[in-house]
Amino acid sequence: MARFLKSREESNGKSPGSLIFIGDQKVDSTKIRLIDYDSASLTEKEIKDIHAAAHLKTTPTVTWLNISGLHDIEMIQNIGKIFQLHPLVMEDLLNTGQRPKLEEFEDYIFIVLKMVRFDNETETIFNEQLSLVLGKNFLLTFQEQPREIFKPVRERIKKSTSRFRKTGTDYLAYALIDTVVDNYIFSIETLGEKIEDLEDDILNDPDSDVMEKINSFKREINYMRKSIRPAKDAIYRISRLDSELIQEQTLPFLKDLEDLTSQATEAIETYRDLLTDQLNIYNSVIANKMNDIMKVLTIFAAIFIPLTFIAGIYGTNFEYLPELKYKYSYFIFWAVMISVAGALIVYFKRKNWF
Amino acid sequence: MARFLKSREESNGKSPGSLIFIGDQKVDSTKIRLIDYDSASLTEKEIKDIHAAAHLKTTPTVTWLNISGLHDIEMIQNIGKIFQLHPLVMEDLLNTGQRPKLEEFEDYIFIVLKMVRFDNETETIFNEQLSLVLGKNFLLTFQEQPREIFKPVRERIKKSTSRFRKTGTDYLAYALIDTVVDNYIFSIETLGEKIEDLEDDILNDPDSDVMEKINSFKREINYMRKSIRPAKDAIYRISRLDSELIQEQTLPFLKDLEDLTSQATEAIETYRDLLTDQLNIYNSVIANKMNDIMKVLTIFAAIFIPLTFIAGIYGTNFEYLPELKYKYSYFIFWAVMISVAGALIVYFKRKNWF
Amino acid sequence: MARFLKSREESNGKSPGSLIFIGDQKVDSTKIRLIDYDSASLTEKEIKDIHAAAHLKTTPTVTWLNISGLHDIEMIQNIGKIFQLHPLVMEDLLNTGQRPKLEEFEDYIFIVLKMVRFDNETETIFNEQLSLVLGKNFLLTFQEQPREIFKPVRERIKKSTSRFRKTGTDYLAYALIDTVVDNYIFSIETLGEKIEDLEDDILNDPDSDVMEKINSFKREINYMRKSIRPAKDAIYRISRLDSELIQEQTLPFLKDLEDLTSQATEAIETYRDLLTDQLNIYNSVIANKMNDIMKVLTIFAAIFIPLTFIAGIYGTNFEYLPELKYKYSYFIFWAVMISVAGALIVYFKRKNWF
Amino acid sequence: MARFLKSREESNGKSPGSLIFIGDQKVDSTKIRLIDYDSASLTEKEIKDIHAAAHLKTTPTVTWLNISGLHDIEMIQNIGKIFQLHPLVMEDLLNTGQRPKLEEFEDYIFIVLKMVRFDNETETIFNEQLSLVLGKNFLLTFQEQPREIFKPVRERIKKSTSRFRKTGTDYLAYALIDTVVDNYIFSIETLGEKIEDLEDDILNDPDSDVMEKINSFKREINYMRKSIRPAKDAIYRISRLDSELIQEQTLPFLKDLEDLTSQATEAIETYRDLLTDQLNIYNSVIANKMNDIMKVLTIFAAIFIPLTFIAGIYGTNFEYLPELKYKYSYFIFWAVMISVAGALIVYFKRKNWF
Amino acid sequence: MARFLKSREESNGKSPGSLIFIGDQKVDSTKIRLIDYDSASLTEKEIKDIHAAAHLKTTPTVTWLNISGLHDIEMIQNIGKIFQLHPLVMEDLLNTGQRPKLEEFEDYIFIVLKMVRFDNETETIFNEQLSLVLGKNFLLTFQEQPREIFKPVRERIKKSTSRFRKTGTDYLAYALIDTVVDNYIFSIETLGEKIEDLEDDILNDPDSDVMEKINSFKREINYMRKSIRPAKDAIYRISRLDSELIQEQTLPFLKDLEDLTSQATEAIETYRDLLTDQLNIYNSVIANKMNDIMKVLTIFAAIFIPLTFIAGIYGTNFEYLPELKYKYSYFIFWAVMISVAGALIVYFKRKNWF
Repeated sequence: MARFLKSREESNGKSPGSLIFIGDQKVDSTKIRLIDYDSASLTEKEIKDIHAAAHLKTTPTVTWLNISGLHDIEMIQNIGKIFQLHPLVMEDLLNTGQRPKLEEFEDYIFIVLKMVRFDNETETIFNEQLSLVLGKNFLLTFQEQPREIFKPVRERIKKSTSRFRKTGTDYLAYALIDTVVDNYIFSIETLGEKIEDLEDDILNDPDSDVMEKINSFKREINYMRKSIRPAKDAIYRISRLDSELIQEQTLPFLKDLEDLTSQATEAIETYRDLLTDQLNIYNSVIANKMNDIMKVLTIFAAIFIPLTFIAGIYGTNFEYLPELKYKYSYFIFWAVMISVAGALIVYFKRKNWF
Repeated sequence: MARFLKSREESNGKSPGSLIFIGDQKVDSTKIRLIDYDSASLTEKEIKDIHAAAHLKTTPTVTWLNISGLHDIEMIQNIGKIFQLHPLVMEDLLNTGQRPKLEEFEDYIFIVLKMVRFDNETETIFNEQLSLVLGKNFLLTFQEQPREIFKPVRERIKKSTSRFRKTGTDYLAYALIDTVVDNYIFSIETLGEKIEDLEDDILNDPDSDVMEKINSFKREINYMRKSIRPAKDAIYRISRLDSELIQEQTLPFLKDLEDLTSQATEAIETYRDLLTDQLNIYNSVIANKMNDIMKVLTIFAAIFIPLTFIAGIYGTNFEYLPELKYKYSYFIFWAVMISVAGALIVYFKRKNWF
Repeated sequence: MARFLKSREESNGKSPGSLIFIGDQKVDSTKIRLIDYDSASLTEKEIKDIHAAAHLKTTPTVTWLNISGLHDIEMIQNIGKIFQLHPLVMEDLLNTGQRPKLEEFEDYIFIVLKMVRFDNETETIFNEQLSLVLGKNFLLTFQEQPREIFKPVRERIKKSTSRFRKTGTDYLAYALIDTVVDNYIFSIETLGEKIEDLEDDILNDPDSDVMEKINSFKREINYMRKSIRPAKDAIYRISRLDSELIQEQTLPFLKDLEDLTSQATEAIETYRDLLTDQLNIYNSVIANKMNDIMKVLTIFAAIFIPLTFIAGIYGTNFEYLPELKYKYSYFIFWAVMISVAGALIVYFKRKNWF
Repeated sequence: MARFLKSREESNGKSPGSLIFIGDQKVDSTKIRLIDYDSASLTEKEIKDIHAAAHLKTTPTVTWLNISGLHDIEMIQNIGKIFQLHPLVMEDLLNTGQRPKLEEFEDYIFIVLKMVRFDNETETIFNEQLSLVLGKNFLLTFQEQPREIFKPVRERIKKSTSRFRKTGTDYLAYALIDTVVDNYIFSIETLGEKIEDLEDDILNDPDSDVMEKINSFKREINYMRKSIRPAKDAIYRISRLDSELIQEQTLPFLKDLEDLTSQATEAIETYRDLLTDQLNIYNSVIANKMNDIMKVLTIFAAIFIPLTFIAGIYGTNFEYLPELKYKYSYFIFWAVMISVAGALIVYFKRKNWF
Repeated sequence: MARFLKSREESNGKSPGSLIFIGDQKVDSTKIRLIDYDSASLTEKEIKDIHAAAHLKTTPTVTWLNISGLHDIEMIQNIGKIFQLHPLVMEDLLNTGQRPKLEEFEDYIFIVLKMVRFDNETETIFNEQLSLVLGKNFLLTFQEQPREIFKPVRERIKKSTSRFRKTGTDYLAYALIDTVVDNYIFSIETLGEKIEDLEDDILNDPDSDVMEKINSFKREINYMRKSIRPAKDAIYRISRLDSELIQEQTLPFLKDLEDLTSQATEAIETYRDLLTDQLNIYNSVIANKMNDIMKVLTIFAAIFIPLTFIAGIYGTNFEYLPELKYKYSYFIFWAVMISVAGALIVYFKRKNWF
């Protein structure tokens, strides 16, 4: 499967809104974690049946349902019915090749993001889809598999003094997206450090491994960019929605998110440029090394080929070759050869070849 | 004929709106398939004479006329008369080199798109023109030849419970365009996979075939881009038309189309960049190989040329050449040569040449 | 004279609006062709003195005056007086290095375009300036020399049933510009075909002629771009003018022109990119060939230089050189050499060098 | 730590607004310098406890508090409380990896900038964060360490005739930012001079040091750009704020700042392009040198290898080798060799190889 | 001093508006030339003391004061006082590193431009600052040194029938800027011609001089661009100012200026692209030449090294070397060598190497 585009091949020709899971199934069973809180009380539990949470939809408490695992189409369908989601939202929830975006519906806001993870061992970027449905009193989040990324948020919610307990679902959604964006920055920084470290290798030990690294880092940074650039647009639009779902006191936090994603995308562009520069420098280094190699070859060849020729002359078997008889010939022969070699060495020195 | 631009040479100097078929005739005879439906009833048949469908223009049922084969100018002219199409629309219908676009007229919307097909064997992109004329109660579609691409849509229409039976021509038009766009994504993914697979060949077996592939994939992706980029603009404009022909309930579907075409064009740009990067890496690999070749040459030459020279000295026939008489000369000669060779080997090792 | 910029050097420091012909005089004498028509009647003739047409300025018939040859400043001055043209318009008419543009004045619209011609023999683009002054009942066109490019338009005007006879000067202006734009597309296609054909040569026979062609095609396409890109802007603005001179029924035709020029400029960008890609591929092909050459050299050198050295050893004249006396030495000598050569051949085969 | 992006790793998962110092602690203790003035009076002193300045917040005098050293979180917290700063502002103050930006709050404007310093010895750019909080009667500035950069401003304030004494905090803020921007320009100029000086080295002495310099200057200019480009946006927005905090008479000064930052960013782009051009030229110079080296090698090899071969022929020991006996053979042999050498020299001369 | 950025180092930390001349003093003494005219009368003279012209500020005649030489700060200060210029305008007047710009003040418009001059001998661009202060009845122009560039304008003013005498200061300002822009176009054309001429040298005689020229022309065109691009923005804004100082009848002339600067900047971009293309072609030519050199080397080496080896074999002194005794050995030896050489020549011919 092409990494930079997941086709909807299976859904091809099907009715839009038909529910098909597109992606790799990463967990055995779908899990639903429910957190329901207001300033006074808090409930946290795992539930099996989504209907158990249906009544919370309309209560004034903040209800956060986190669904991990997306292959259980029936359950997703039930969620869709209970929360009255548009068929296209349902389809997007299940398509893990979805492009990050924000869509506003009458009663809720639908946000698709990518969570990004840099695997230090394989030096590869993995991404996973996170969808958020932000309603008046509820927030649904959909992950491909359970991850501990949101644990700190859960911990903070539990503290009765935390800002969460005084604010609504919009602040919760912000906090989750903030965690995702922090992860972007952390991943870019980790990869960026490796990219910046390449420089020494390029100048000092430019073997083909370095080149392969430049290449693979470029691919990974491009892959990251594909997830983060549209996310920036989506986040930018959140605070500009004229929606009742976003309270005014949350706006400065959303503005801060914008700054962070701007920083992330700028850093991505900077590293892309850096990698391009590095490949150029690598090529220059290789060209320089080639020149050095050729200088060595040329110096050896240019000095010894003429000398060998001179020796060859006096290796001929002509009967009348006067110099051969002369007693000091051999010493003159050496003198000539040393002079020739010396002259050539001076010549190459003058050309600054060594 | 230049692949990236079909000129209107034949129509050159002719009156605008004069009807000339521009393109390759791909079928023998033009076929008209008529589907006429509302929530209660459905008719599907092939008709010979377009006048047989003329009365359906004003009935409240959804009337879909699919014309495949564009060389029958008379029939096209009849269609134009019955549905009162502007002369320029008629001209565009027949010009298969038309650029994708959307045009709004008083009573209908005219859309030109390219259907794209990636031929796996020749690894070439083919495109065919699809024109849509969307009226209040009718939808005309014009293809260069009959293709089964819209069969799933027809099947879905036949189900009396499908969304089609409850909606109008705008939803039908959406469904057809959606099929076309799905095809874009599928074609890009197929080509993209091949492009991503190139990488290994570039690093491990960078022969000139690889380079030719990079080149030909770049050409194909550019060819695809030429069809899809203007399509994106056209699709973007559909949902922003303030037209009675587009019902509000269709808007989220059109928005979804926009997302898909954005994804398609982004993927195209990504693959274009990737191919550029690949050619750069290919060149670096070639330069590296050149360095390796030159090192081999230089090592051989630098070691054996001096040795040959030394041998040459003692191959001279000077009468007074003292060393030749000395009993251990030959062994000293070998010792000297081994030392010289050894010194050079150490020198090259230190330079990290092997 | 720099091809990409014609300076107004001669007019330097002169009063703006001072009339100086800038360009190469391409004809001996200026010709004025007059066509005057309405739905009922038509007159076509050549006139010597522009005053003969002065009275037609205000008649309700469409009056088209085509002036070919721009060096006759006095005549141009007379035209300016009769049709009350702004001094800057007069200056622009005479400056054949003018950039395509559109300017709206109170009573007329002034349009400057370039006609483009690709000469197949020299593979060079030539351009010529076409200026239009579109008034209520008259259209003035100024060419550098008489060309048959507008003949089809004249023919169509003569047919009493043609659209021309029912419409005004704006449609006539459209028809002429349409002819010019058709020519752009035709020229780009002709050059484009040649560019696309280069590809085979690059891969199979990459001599320096190919490189020169890439270079010269790039220059020509740039030259074409210089004429067409500003023309696109000018054409775009025509249909957006809120002018009484443009009738509503002409708007769809102008919209069509916009599409054509968009197609032209897109094709130009595509071909520019293609040529850049081609030069890159060309360089890769050259680098590949270099590698092949160096492999041949290295294989020959690496095999025969050591062998020559071995032969050299037994060509030395040491008195005590035991191997020389031994009867089978010569055969062992051959065996050693064949082994060395064989080992090296195996080594290079393993490196995939041949 | 990646130089182009400082992650908030430590704050990861923490509540937004939690105060953590991110960066290198550059001083032992935080210092607060207070300057309080109006047209009549002026006080300047260092204070230990921020509460000593709390009452000045509301007095009509201009109160400038410069805090250098950011690791003392408690003190920052106190400042935040006294001046009622938003938690996110507090967080940003402490994060030295913050991107330059401007944010408007109800009672104050928050500006983050980078001060840039080019170290001539290491030829490296250092940057330090400067945050400004501009209120009605107070200006807070936060630096990572005390620097003498603002000393001239302090001197000017002390002169009772200076413009400062007649204007408000906005002019003071302008003056400080102006100092920062002057520093940008000075740093770019210093680096730019070095870049422009590289050119001679590239053409005359293109060793690998030059290439490393091109590379490192590119990195530094990119690093500078990262600080200055967003600063430009922030500065642009200051004069467009519809805020009571900015007086109309300060606007021309802010406009002037815009011009300066435009100049700075343009110069950065120019130098980036210049460095790219320089690397290209460097590569061409290297390729040229390679050609020269290869010409030397080829000339030596092509002349002496054939000659050595001829000598080799007459070094063979065939019993029946007629030429050997002939008395003038040796001289003919020389003649032949000189002719061959001469012919080759003429050949290479004609090819313009030397 | 960096050529692409003049820092305000000296003014660093000084109060904004403090008057310091930044640049090279190019003349000994400052000269003031006064031209004062209306339709009836005209005065032209040089004045020493600016106060002699102070009364003309308010008279309805057009008063043009041209100040050449900017180092006389006192005089500039006097001018500033008389014409009530803003301190920042005063500062900009004296800073010859100012970026071209337009600023509108209540009573006057301040315009900074660069005059550009291409020195044919050194093939270098020089620029000089021209500042204009356009008031209701006066125009101040500031040059770094007296130049004859505005002489034609002065001549035209003297003709009592000229347009100048019927118009105001705005037309005079236009005429001066027009002269400056004409100079841009002329300089670009002169340099452009040289650039276009390079092409032949690149293809036929690509020595390193050509490369240096490409490089230096690129630098010069970039330098020119730095002056002209912001000038374009400034000129664009003049005609869009809603200022009483610009009369409506002057607008078409300003529009014409816009066209000219557009043409200038487009030509600059075209030549920049051309130079980039030329360097690419140059590199391809060099690579081609390298291939040719290597072919010569390889052909010589591949033919003669094996032959030398064969000769070497029969130069060995083995006692039992049967071929040596055989009578026709020598002739067979020749036959073998000619065959080997012939086979190799055929091989290389087939590879199209010569």
